Amino acid sequence: MTITITAFERSPDGGRGLARDTRVRWALEEVGQPYEVRLVSFKAMKEPAYLALQPFGQIPTFEEDGLVLFETGAIILHIAQRHRGLLPDAPEPRARAMAWMFAALNTIEPPIVEREAAQITERGKPWHAERLPMLDERIRTRLRQLSAWLGDRPWLDGAFSAGDLMMVSVLLRLKSSGLLDDVPNLAAYLARGEDRPAYRRAYAAQRAVNVP
Amino acid sequence: MTITITAFERSPDGGRGLARDTRVRWALEEVGQPYEVRLVSFKAMKEPAYLALQPFGQIPTFEEDGLVLFETGAIILHIAQRHRGLLPDAPEPRARAMAWMFAALNTIEPPIVEREAAQITERGKPWHAERLPMLDERIRTRLRQLSAWLGDRPWLDGAFSAGDLMMVSVLLRLKSSGLLDDVPNLAAYLARGEDRPAYRRAYAAQRAVNVP
Repeated sequence: MTITITAFERSPDGGRGLARDTRVRWALEEVGQPYEVRLVSFKAMKEPAYLALQPFGQIPTFEEDGLVLFETGAIILHIAQRHRGLLPDAPEPRARAMAWMFAALNTIEPPIVEREAAQITERGKPWHAERLPMLDERIRTRLRQLSAWLGDRPWLDGAFSAGDLMMVSVLLRLKSSGLLDDVPNLAAYLARGEDRPAYRRAYAAQRAVNVP
Repeated sequence: MTITITAFERSPDGGRGLARDTRVRWALEEVGQPYEVRLVSFKAMKEPAYLALQPFGQIPTFEEDGLVLFETGAIILHIAQRHRGLLPDAPEPRARAMAWMFAALNTIEPPIVEREAAQITERGKPWHAERLPMLDERIRTRLRQLSAWLGDRPWLDGAFSAGDLMMVSVLLRLKSSGLLDDVPNLAAYLARGEDRPAYRRAYAAQRAVNVP
């Protein structure tokens, strides 16, 4: 039962833990499953052998005893369903935790990814200065709603779950943006996530690859 | 065991079936579960009573016997796990079908949503004409990869699953864009999805709300 995941040979974030393998490493650390990592280059990710595992040429993939999975959300859901520690046992809280996984990936993360894409691909364009505040406002709207929900809860819905793992991972992308300054309860929530021993181990493991 | 979902009182797409309640209606039709619909206005969606069910003020929500779920992906996963018809029984194909749900929502749909957002919020901006082809190219890249994976398979990974339901629902958003013209196997795949009796019933039900 060896688990192997793929990760960037050299992560574009230089080891800040934002590449999506960190999320899978964190999940595996939370449930106490050892894993191996196969590093892939940007060139290899676009070649047929890799595309047979991951049709979109992305990391991470997950392999275990002949099962091949892709999409970080699906990989983490699979880990959480197979091992205790990331989902409540009772059906209703379990379904709610999954809803928060989807909310992180589908409602909170897309405008954040768009802002990053604009920073990279449109920084030199004449419209960038006018467009960036529009992108920021989309993110702020979601952060205000999330902050209102969280209130003074420690985690999104009861005990720490895969939903929190994903939400914290998404919010990490905003750490240097200043956008969390207006939502102190989310900044504190993010800090609680980063402080988990399993996260620290995952972060250190990805960093060891990228900052040798 | 009454299932109640929410939907727009008046859908912004005028009944073309692109609002996300159609995806949940389709899933419920595939598994043969009756459901009731509560229509909500844009105003009501932003009020505290609704935000207690759906923290981001979106449709659909799903309620059944005290369980409240949000996020279309989570709702469909819940339906698929509780009823036969949308996920294979064997664990590995089941995990793969879920991977395709996440791929539809997290890899294929975001650039499509971005294109739609630009069409609405940036149509009058001086940069729109230069930016639109950039958005189109992001979508085309994903469509080419998806097309290469699909090849001459009827569905993405074995029998029709929740992964196909989600992918077809996402591709429907491109129907009038012309972007499917270069990928005839995806256009045929989309048509196979639309031809399913469960989809037709779901489409008709949402249309009856919006085109009285």
